[in-house]
Amino acid sequence: MNTIINPSKKDWTKILERPTKTVDDIEGIVNEVFIDIQQNGDTAVAKYTVKFDGVSLENTIVSGEEIKEAINLVSNDLKEAINVAKENITKFHAAQKTKKVFVETTNGVECWQEKRPISKVGLYIPGGTAPLFSTVLMLAIPAQIAGCKEVVLCSPPNKEGKIHPAILYAANLCGVTKIIKVGGIQAIAGFTFGTETTPQVYKIFGPGNQFVTVAKQIATKHGVAIDMPAGPSELLVVADDSANASFVASDLLSQAEHGADSQVILVSTSEKLITEVEKEIKLQLAQLSRVEIAQKAIDNSKSIFVKNDEIALDLINEYGPEHFIVCTNNNDFYVDNIENAGSVFIGNYTPESAGDYASGTNHTLPTNGFSKSYSGVNLDSFTKSITFQKISKEGIKSIGKSIELMAAAEGLDAHKNAVSIRLKDLK
Amino acid sequence: MNTIINPSKKDWTKILERPTKTVDDIEGIVNEVFIDIQQNGDTAVAKYTVKFDGVSLENTIVSGEEIKEAINLVSNDLKEAINVAKENITKFHAAQKTKKVFVETTNGVECWQEKRPISKVGLYIPGGTAPLFSTVLMLAIPAQIAGCKEVVLCSPPNKEGKIHPAILYAANLCGVTKIIKVGGIQAIAGFTFGTETTPQVYKIFGPGNQFVTVAKQIATKHGVAIDMPAGPSELLVVADDSANASFVASDLLSQAEHGADSQVILVSTSEKLITEVEKEIKLQLAQLSRVEIAQKAIDNSKSIFVKNDEIALDLINEYGPEHFIVCTNNNDFYVDNIENAGSVFIGNYTPESAGDYASGTNHTLPTNGFSKSYSGVNLDSFTKSITFQKISKEGIKSIGKSIELMAAAEGLDAHKNAVSIRLKDLK
Repeated sequence: MNTIINPSKKDWTKILERPTKTVDDIEGIVNEVFIDIQQNGDTAVAKYTVKFDGVSLENTIVSGEEIKEAINLVSNDLKEAINVAKENITKFHAAQKTKKVFVETTNGVECWQEKRPISKVGLYIPGGTAPLFSTVLMLAIPAQIAGCKEVVLCSPPNKEGKIHPAILYAANLCGVTKIIKVGGIQAIAGFTFGTETTPQVYKIFGPGNQFVTVAKQIATKHGVAIDMPAGPSELLVVADDSANASFVASDLLSQAEHGADSQVILVSTSEKLITEVEKEIKLQLAQLSRVEIAQKAIDNSKSIFVKNDEIALDLINEYGPEHFIVCTNNNDFYVDNIENAGSVFIGNYTPESAGDYASGTNHTLPTNGFSKSYSGVNLDSFTKSITFQKISKEGIKSIGKSIELMAAAEGLDAHKNAVSIRLKDLK
Repeated sequence: MNTIINPSKKDWTKILERPTKTVDDIEGIVNEVFIDIQQNGDTAVAKYTVKFDGVSLENTIVSGEEIKEAINLVSNDLKEAINVAKENITKFHAAQKTKKVFVETTNGVECWQEKRPISKVGLYIPGGTAPLFSTVLMLAIPAQIAGCKEVVLCSPPNKEGKIHPAILYAANLCGVTKIIKVGGIQAIAGFTFGTETTPQVYKIFGPGNQFVTVAKQIATKHGVAIDMPAGPSELLVVADDSANASFVASDLLSQAEHGADSQVILVSTSEKLITEVEKEIKLQLAQLSRVEIAQKAIDNSKSIFVKNDEIALDLINEYGPEHFIVCTNNNDFYVDNIENAGSVFIGNYTPESAGDYASGTNHTLPTNGFSKSYSGVNLDSFTKSITFQKISKEGIKSIGKSIELMAAAEGLDAHKNAVSIRLKDLK
């Protein structure tokens, strides 16, 4: 890690700069796949599955048989663990339900706001070495609680034409209505336009590589919403002498193993702790299976010493970390005043991986500083609010004149007339 | 209007197609302005203000003096009307505040969700013939209730270098912290990168022409969030013999006067009503100041006769109107079952223009079918939710094993180790 002592505020932007990727060069490929799938549906999907996943499938819809097989393949221990996680995630997301907001703003003018589920949602789960069944839980559980009618999951097939059993097990457990063996750009294009097998959806959720990220951006141009813009995962830890250096090191490493471009930052008011954590990182790093990836991420990462908690907080709000661990003598100060963060982990016994799997909070969080304006995925991500108003004769008599005056001042005659014609009728 | 009788479901997509605009050709201009402003700040902004607005300004920040002048220029009647609207909008949006969601998901595992304001927001208010001070209310009031620290408003200057007094009056009334005389692409680019006078913001709100719409899309590529994608305004009315045909006609026309590309649809189970409404439209149209615009929009619009309320509802959910007026013998059926709409207006005395100005609901709503996945602007649009978790020694002992198992199954060793190291410590 690169240690920086008391940086001056004007250098913060530079210091906090994230590893950037340019995506312009892959937009061409993505657009090409999109157009092909829009025009040729499943035929085109099959072509790209051969090309990108190296497998040719007769049927891409996961059958009941395959799900049964998957259920048998997942160990009882892992099933039990998934059930614990499911229970906690369900409790936390069900608690996020909100009641109808009802206000009679003026006598006879009733206004209310209700949340209704997004009818059709698409969940994308990447393939590759790590089968992200935890992401299935994080997306399918709130979709089910929200009441989404169609919850479609796409995930790429492996060379044997299969999806990892843990993914199928979790999807089946959490009420996914359809599972399709298709990955990458072609999955996102399928969600966007609909094909013979993939239904068109209104919103797409889930992580993915650069191609998936760009495909999701392109999907928005075609009128489909997405959960949030994606970037490499990040962790910022603020810790002082009250923190356990080996715990802090383990948390920084758990973030670093995600990818060489993962961003890991330690902010501290204790130079002693910084030294200890760096020592611990070296010790622990050697023992990890993904040591090379983690080493690269750590090499690009920073330990920042600052004089006091106020400066630390300022710097953290400027950065807006996806994951934010607070381990100090002054935790409440940070918790009360943090403005920009995806999820906050408090105290020595709250590792970030708890939130990744089983505490109950969602692990789909805003990266790349998007915590300044975006929420992580939560129950509301699967709903939209609709407003309603019902005005009585008395109500329109009360507010009618104001509407007429404002519409006239904006030069919108017909808006005014819609009120005048009613007021005249009531005379 | 074009009348369509009992269309078959397979033709709905075609019938409900919206007037589309291609925006690709103006992306070039927008990108050019963005790069220039990113590199040259206010100097570039000034150049484009001369070019696009035809005026050269020494100072673009609206002064206290100018605000005083504006307050004097707005009539007392209009001030009173704006105050009525402000009161209702405030009541309805303040009622949308939500409490912290707190759940102890497992003994010793405390999770909570809190909403915090987006610190810096930019509001864009178009210039042109209609001074949209009502939009100032719709954006600045919830921003203030949410507690956004910086609320910056940009609006283009007229040839005299001024902003319409009603806009300044409303902005000042609703706690806008800075008002800048800059419009179009250059305003959105300023919000995106920051200049010497325009602060960089985290989220941009507000309507605008095609250039502003594309500029907002480009802003998202640079990491700034936007309220929602924009499209031409729309109204769908479902009405039967219980509706007043002249009221319905006035509502359709109030939508039609927005622009020639506005979309107006009447759905009815009564052919008699359709005939009456069309007659009324002809009568009322002749008397409007914006008759040419409204006529063009009406020419492109549709009256659709369907056999029953179930079919009507299906068709309406397929369309997902921005504004939805319900005037039938069966209002509850529509209100209870509508899935996709921005805002719903119920009964004979609830004109759409009530929601545009003064009922209390927000008038910034999803167009173009985006009501299938987007909410209209509401209090939450100015906040983001952050999740927190605090796990005790007992808590990590309870869920630790599940986390270890899941992390191992996903091949993420360091994630597992962050838990193992703590469990070991607790033995």
